[in-house]
Amino acid sequence: MWNGDKIAMNFEDFEEKTVTREDIFKGQVIDVKYDTVTLPGKTETAKRELVFHNGGVAVLAITDEQKMILVRQFRKALEKVIYEIPAGKLEQGENSDPQAAMVRELEEETGMAAATIVKISEFYTAPGFCNEVLHLYKAQNLTKVDNPRPQDADETIELHEVTLAEAKAMIKSGEIADAKTLIAIQYWELETHA
Amino acid sequence: MWNGDKIAMNFEDFEEKTVTREDIFKGQVIDVKYDTVTLPGKTETAKRELVFHNGGVAVLAITDEQKMILVRQFRKALEKVIYEIPAGKLEQGENSDPQAAMVRELEEETGMAAATIVKISEFYTAPGFCNEVLHLYKAQNLTKVDNPRPQDADETIELHEVTLAEAKAMIKSGEIADAKTLIAIQYWELETHA
Repeated sequence: MWNGDKIAMNFEDFEEKTVTREDIFKGQVIDVKYDTVTLPGKTETAKRELVFHNGGVAVLAITDEQKMILVRQFRKALEKVIYEIPAGKLEQGENSDPQAAMVRELEEETGMAAATIVKISEFYTAPGFCNEVLHLYKAQNLTKVDNPRPQDADETIELHEVTLAEAKAMIKSGEIADAKTLIAIQYWELETHA
Repeated sequence: MWNGDKIAMNFEDFEEKTVTREDIFKGQVIDVKYDTVTLPGKTETAKRELVFHNGGVAVLAITDEQKMILVRQFRKALEKVIYEIPAGKLEQGENSDPQAAMVRELEEETGMAAATIVKISEFYTAPGFCNEVLHLYKAQNLTKVDNPRPQDADETIELHEVTLAEAKAMIKSGEIADAKTLIAIQYWELETHA
């Protein structure tokens, strides 16, 4: 099945063309659209429910004591308080410089600045219906910012620092169950192995 | 900051209570709601844009040749063809048995059945606005199903098999950029290290 560089099917063999697009919702975080699309090689059409998001940033921030910073916060969609790595949305115009957005979010959420920043990866969080791309960084050599930007007025967060072993135990117990945080912890563990 | 078992703040210190909830969209895949919520300890309210999803399943399916199965498909939200591990939505009533849903999706998408199935984890894909939970499994000892359930009529997919080294190269090149697929590949690599 996998055949190296040769790709069996072309883009046209997959593409679903928009026949109609209905604007359902235009918000501050997401836009929702409802498409009717053609199916490749078929006469039938299909419906697609789509969420458009401006993308976000997230950061594996590791202290000099080799602990990662976790943010504990309420998530309305879940009606739960969960642990995540520091993260935030790209604001309009920040798409060309996600690292600057990460630096801003790190300062707002943790009061820290990082002397060493590395990009880990970027990925789609839920490509089945949503175009959100998340840019993930590693930040080290952290120092307290003197007068950090304040947290967003509508955010209540609590900071924690955990070792890799503690983070792995929190995954096992289900306390950590957030995709970007799992990716960051697995990355950290793989790097530690290497 | 991290203080072992002692949790500094209680649920009530974080909770955002719904003041009003507006139904924006009710689809086959997602429901969209728009809430006005209270903020803890404040008199102001805030708006929350929320996507509700019934959850899904995904599978790291490893062949006897130690290759993982990838599905190549078009994603309308991205207007792109991307690589992902086999995955699908939980249908109504399947929430109590996600493993059965995974077995169904594996058969529909790859024509394979697995003699050995292990649950890897479950996680939120985009908890900032969406309640989707994804149940991730590992499936091994794969055999071809004689008369497999057909693929969904509105799905066009292409199957690939790649080694761990090939999968890692595809992450590095950006060919693989899907959160659940990254989690699965990193899990596989960590397991191989162990």
